[in-house]
Amino acid sequence: MTKVTAQLSVSLDGCYAGPRHEGGDWMGSAEAAKFFRVTRWAVEAMAWRERHGLAGGEQDVDSDVIRESFEAAGAYVMGRRMADGGEEPWGEEPPFRAPVFVVTHRPRATLTRRGGTSFTYVTDGVASAVARAKAAAGGKDVAIAGGGSLVRQVLAAGLLDELELHVVPVVLGDGMRLLDGDLGLGDREGVELTPTRVLHSPGVTHIRYRVDGRAPLVPAEPTS
Amino acid sequence: MTKVTAQLSVSLDGCYAGPRHEGGDWMGSAEAAKFFRVTRWAVEAMAWRERHGLAGGEQDVDSDVIRESFEAAGAYVMGRRMADGGEEPWGEEPPFRAPVFVVTHRPRATLTRRGGTSFTYVTDGVASAVARAKAAAGGKDVAIAGGGSLVRQVLAAGLLDELELHVVPVVLGDGMRLLDGDLGLGDREGVELTPTRVLHSPGVTHIRYRVDGRAPLVPAEPTS
Repeated sequence: MTKVTAQLSVSLDGCYAGPRHEGGDWMGSAEAAKFFRVTRWAVEAMAWRERHGLAGGEQDVDSDVIRESFEAAGAYVMGRRMADGGEEPWGEEPPFRAPVFVVTHRPRATLTRRGGTSFTYVTDGVASAVARAKAAAGGKDVAIAGGGSLVRQVLAAGLLDELELHVVPVVLGDGMRLLDGDLGLGDREGVELTPTRVLHSPGVTHIRYRVDGRAPLVPAEPTS
Repeated sequence: MTKVTAQLSVSLDGCYAGPRHEGGDWMGSAEAAKFFRVTRWAVEAMAWRERHGLAGGEQDVDSDVIRESFEAAGAYVMGRRMADGGEEPWGEEPPFRAPVFVVTHRPRATLTRRGGTSFTYVTDGVASAVARAKAAAGGKDVAIAGGGSLVRQVLAAGLLDELELHVVPVVLGDGMRLLDGDLGLGDREGVELTPTRVLHSPGVTHIRYRVDGRAPLVPAEPTS
């Protein structure tokens, strides 16, 4: 059955990048510096490098996690800012090799790239993009590629089945947090999850969760 | 050698309790509801219950982690709010069985309790409390007992050697975050850590880190 999954690299304080940068020179921004620290483990992994047409890299548990993640995805859903930011660096043969549905308010004609990747711009909301990706996934999973605010929207809408966090051992102090406060939870309510797999290397801890969904907060049984 | 350690239960979004509650009925507050959800795994563990004079509980990896943590500590450092809040529930025989140094601005005479616990109120700052605890620890570790803001102060001051997070699989949406933004880091700088142990059960993932300290953020090697 097609699952809706997301995986994201975060710092120990939950940031996937530095504070949002507006205007030019993104590469020189604190947003980018923190993003590149948090994703360093992936860029150093062989499976990531292969998908991006680069030689070298480590063949280790981190690389296995990335390879598996690419292989499991039959379609992607992506935010417009990420899609626009990636358009140039991903080039003519992006790493996805599957249909990508871009959530946006601004219509654009579908882009078809080499290697199986296409970008279809969806203007009628996140749920519609997820539904279209499910239909296109050929029985594989739908991966929410990011950015973080899209992952959060999908989680808040109750559409996410599985979340894998790659927890990087650095504290960044500030930046964009994946799990920030706009999930619409009541003050006695949480989103409950169940860890289903924990893998680790010196540079990152991979924790995969099944998303069980919103539920009232339950304390321990009374202690007497 | 005496290490300075801290261990804290946090939600997947980094909260150790709900939003700070002022005034009466703390037990009925959202701060408490979220605190009790995040610490539920501990209250259900046999080693925690034994230390609190309660029967029952699970004897599992979670209980081992708690037992080891109590046994490693030769002295504690604690914030005043936590010490005051615990004074009544901990009763005549608190679970620490070691000297506790309470960081405060308001002087108070030392309290001596049964079973080896004492509370000494230190008014000349966090570093002084840590130094006094080290001198009292008899070669064992100094544990920063909390609350979260004290742990953060000790981390920011470069005094923390080891941090263990008990990551509970629930998203709380808001609350007090252990690693919030007042660490005084520059925007190209982080606190780097190295994971030294990862243990997990269905209810919580225990990740222990050595704190390496502040360092400039390093990206991956150039990709060409």
